[in-house]
Amino acid sequence: MGLQRLRSWLPIFDWGRHYDRSTLVSDLLAAVIVTLMLIPQSLAYASLAGLPPVAGLYASTVPLLLYALLGSSRVLAVGPVAVVSLMTATAVVEHAVPGSPQYWGVAITLAFLSGAMLLLMGVLRLGFLASFLSHPVSSGFIMASALLIALGQLTVILGIKTGASDFFGLLWGVLQQWQQVHGLSAAVGLGAVAALLWARLGLKPTLIRFGLGSRLSDALARAAPLAVIALTTLLTRGLGWHEAGLRIVGGVPQGLPPLTAPIWDAGLWRELALAAFLISVVGFVESVSVGQTLAARRRERIDPDRELLALGASNLGASMTAGFPVTGGFSRSVVNFDAGAQTPAAGVFTALGILLTALLLTPALYFVPQATLAATIVVAVLSLVDLSIFRRTWYYSKADFIAGVVTVIVTLAYGVEAGLLSGVLVSLLLFLFKTSRPHIAEVGLVAGTEHFRNVRRHRVSVGTRLLSLRPDESLYFANIRALEDWINEAVASRPALKHLVLQCSAINDIDASALEGLQAINLRLRHAGVMFHLSEIKGPVMDRLRRSDFLDQLSGQFFLTHFQAVAQLAPEMISPTAAPQGRA
Amino acid sequence: MGLQRLRSWLPIFDWGRHYDRSTLVSDLLAAVIVTLMLIPQSLAYASLAGLPPVAGLYASTVPLLLYALLGSSRVLAVGPVAVVSLMTATAVVEHAVPGSPQYWGVAITLAFLSGAMLLLMGVLRLGFLASFLSHPVSSGFIMASALLIALGQLTVILGIKTGASDFFGLLWGVLQQWQQVHGLSAAVGLGAVAALLWARLGLKPTLIRFGLGSRLSDALARAAPLAVIALTTLLTRGLGWHEAGLRIVGGVPQGLPPLTAPIWDAGLWRELALAAFLISVVGFVESVSVGQTLAARRRERIDPDRELLALGASNLGASMTAGFPVTGGFSRSVVNFDAGAQTPAAGVFTALGILLTALLLTPALYFVPQATLAATIVVAVLSLVDLSIFRRTWYYSKADFIAGVVTVIVTLAYGVEAGLLSGVLVSLLLFLFKTSRPHIAEVGLVAGTEHFRNVRRHRVSVGTRLLSLRPDESLYFANIRALEDWINEAVASRPALKHLVLQCSAINDIDASALEGLQAINLRLRHAGVMFHLSEIKGPVMDRLRRSDFLDQLSGQFFLTHFQAVAQLAPEMISPTAAPQGRA
Repeated sequence: MGLQRLRSWLPIFDWGRHYDRSTLVSDLLAAVIVTLMLIPQSLAYASLAGLPPVAGLYASTVPLLLYALLGSSRVLAVGPVAVVSLMTATAVVEHAVPGSPQYWGVAITLAFLSGAMLLLMGVLRLGFLASFLSHPVSSGFIMASALLIALGQLTVILGIKTGASDFFGLLWGVLQQWQQVHGLSAAVGLGAVAALLWARLGLKPTLIRFGLGSRLSDALARAAPLAVIALTTLLTRGLGWHEAGLRIVGGVPQGLPPLTAPIWDAGLWRELALAAFLISVVGFVESVSVGQTLAARRRERIDPDRELLALGASNLGASMTAGFPVTGGFSRSVVNFDAGAQTPAAGVFTALGILLTALLLTPALYFVPQATLAATIVVAVLSLVDLSIFRRTWYYSKADFIAGVVTVIVTLAYGVEAGLLSGVLVSLLLFLFKTSRPHIAEVGLVAGTEHFRNVRRHRVSVGTRLLSLRPDESLYFANIRALEDWINEAVASRPALKHLVLQCSAINDIDASALEGLQAINLRLRHAGVMFHLSEIKGPVMDRLRRSDFLDQLSGQFFLTHFQAVAQLAPEMISPTAAPQGRA
Repeated sequence: MGLQRLRSWLPIFDWGRHYDRSTLVSDLLAAVIVTLMLIPQSLAYASLAGLPPVAGLYASTVPLLLYALLGSSRVLAVGPVAVVSLMTATAVVEHAVPGSPQYWGVAITLAFLSGAMLLLMGVLRLGFLASFLSHPVSSGFIMASALLIALGQLTVILGIKTGASDFFGLLWGVLQQWQQVHGLSAAVGLGAVAALLWARLGLKPTLIRFGLGSRLSDALARAAPLAVIALTTLLTRGLGWHEAGLRIVGGVPQGLPPLTAPIWDAGLWRELALAAFLISVVGFVESVSVGQTLAARRRERIDPDRELLALGASNLGASMTAGFPVTGGFSRSVVNFDAGAQTPAAGVFTALGILLTALLLTPALYFVPQATLAATIVVAVLSLVDLSIFRRTWYYSKADFIAGVVTVIVTLAYGVEAGLLSGVLVSLLLFLFKTSRPHIAEVGLVAGTEHFRNVRRHRVSVGTRLLSLRPDESLYFANIRALEDWINEAVASRPALKHLVLQCSAINDIDASALEGLQAINLRLRHAGVMFHLSEIKGPVMDRLRRSDFLDQLSGQFFLTHFQAVAQLAPEMISPTAAPQGRA
């Protein structure tokens, strides 16, 4: 591999050459802030995934280093994220008991499979597969997952065990077992939620009002989660709350992440394949959308196929160092960006920070209350709930609205995998349904131009001997019959008709079934004494028609522009005395 | 219900008023010919469906009467057909032992469910569902079914039991058990196949050469199957072949069809539902396509929703009179048409002919060899094998070719239901795949017109300050990212660019995800100092955009025609001195 080739593969050659002291300072500062944010998050998301808290620290080291080496985004912060952790728990719990070594092994295997799939998708350039996750479906999915996570963490805070995993079952369990709520845990957890919400919404303006600078206020507000954790931890230790039944993190092993390998079991792999695929797609979509948004703000671009490779390597790295599936996180990438990260070196420094934590600071985590960690998750995921997408799609497009609502409901009632799959399926079916009922417009000449528009919407001139039709859809098996029916009826009601011209400006493809349909139309029109013409056929469509015998059979002609067709076949329509009709 | 309403529902009021003696003679003659063809066919297809031969006669009486009363085609001949009989056998054998009364009951239930579904689809006007069966898929399906049927009947002729139901299993069984072939049965069956093939291909010209008129030769050639059956039956009876192990039809009960009812078992219904749905769709598609072809020859039209009701009633009728699923048959409708049938009365007369057969002639069927019936099926279905569709789609459209080939292979290897479903699925996925990778053309002005075409295909003029793009696809979640990428790259490589105009003539819809994409494009272009304009937006698309806030955000303007956009934004491109570029 030549150096040039290596350079195009490793972005570090790009940004590394211009690395200087001011960039270093910016990156270091951003790394400190992200590390302080990532420590509680990684512990919390490990719990959400059903794993010991230390797994979250492990998943925030090597994956970050690999992403920094290979990723195309300069500011994306990789690590455990809420939705993917929930998906991990959902998949792994089918195969092992939470808390057992087997459970951790399955999670490692899932990270391995997800990493391998991402790599494969990157090599085969299959990133376009992610496009099939429409915006309403991914929004609905993330929102429903957030509600599921928040409610699940609420049961942790309240000290309730419901045994349910769906939203309505959890809700019913919470309502039913109201009596069994653990008072101290609830007080600590709900107090932490309230404090965190206030820190997010009201702390920064308050600090500014007290005379602090905007930048400092911002940094302090962002450190609030750490302060809440420190405070509840110290109180627990000092007042012995853990002896009163408050669940705490407990002993976290100190040291570097151990080397691990996935479980080599073909049967397990087959059963995890779908979950790994969905985790890959969801992680990729979340990561790429964050990365693109942030890159655009600095006029940079990210390369989706490169992202697949980088995320794949990160997940393989997670599987080799006792981690679990990771991806680019939204809030932490935004923090990284806002804190001034300039290059992927910020990610390297963050990984080193987490590594130091794992090496030195885990004893300090012993008394961290589980309820406080749950509270940080609740507050983090609530920001993912954004109902405005439903209001907007309701006005804009009912099909999108339906797809989004189906995703939310199925995710809440039947879990993440069913929700995601049914959302994709419903949006594809609705797209097919729309294209199977094409809009077909009769068009006429806009006076003073060579342009033709719908007679129902514009003031245009039409003739009795020539009918101009514009089908607004590619012609394919599911809609060609609709065009046949339209033409049959149009011809039956126009006795003077001699020419029918199909304006093909909106026809982007004609498949084999549609070709048969056009041949049938041509034949029927010929029997009825009407010539069948086509205008404005696109290049790729014409190339294809040339490979069939349709051109020889056609009773009429081809025209480059619709105006030329009308000028030749019905010149009286062009004359200035032609009476315009249609809507004024 | 007023008389007018009743008339619109019962076509008999339409054709009945003009019924006269010459129509009667034509219809009677056609009915005699179709009856003679239908007797052996109905016995054979009943065997194919795994039922006693008399069930075929029953299925050819009441269903024909009901179709004559309700159907919109004047010449469609309804009854048992090959593919639907095979699908019936495939579905019923899962629930009962062939030959048992339970088996017949399940077949009756299947006809009932299929009839109810067709009626429901007719009432809800769901006929468009059938459009999702593309031409390559339905051709491939019918062809593969024909091969399956032919090979299955060959095992009947050879007297071999393979136990397999898939094509390759059957083929392997035949090759393996070559030694167990029943010689007499094979001689009778293969002799009949040869005679029938000769009658179909060589008899008519031979008769004409012997001086007979064309019409008489035609009628004699068509009576050949009956002659072959009569001859082998008489030989069997005279020479006692049945005592040498040649399987014969045996006792066929004499009399009117009995009244029957479906098995009322919700569990069975659920299990039969998919099969009933697929039988309904396949039967409907086959019936409507032959009905439309024949109607077009006489400048008549059939009404697909009406056909659903008529076929639904026919199948309900079959379920009440000990029949099994029926539909309009291709060859027999063509014979009916060619023989001069003028009105549905020909169908009534055919039903009466079969009824007379069931009442009086069943003793004459005792010695009919099963091998001869199998031979008539083999020859009938071989005419359904038409490989030209593969040759044509190979040249015209690889996607259609793939869909057809997948249908054939899966049908042969895994049976009719899997074949049909996978064909539909593959064709839908290929359609989605195509639309997810849209053709995007840079367009320029065709000299001397107001028309814009692809710069790569036409000699057109373009400017450096204004870029005209025409995306050739509706914008939706699966392809909006492709447009974003295209524009990002185009803008990056054109430093002088000030205006980007999207010609929306081929955009038939913009969904919510695509709207977000356009907003992102608008924002990014604004940052890069490029104005974003849209031209030739279709009415329905504009209506929808008006319901969003996109119009307020857009940095540029809307233009009715692309020519107006260029004339206003880059008038230098319109001047006669503008240098054309692109392909000459």
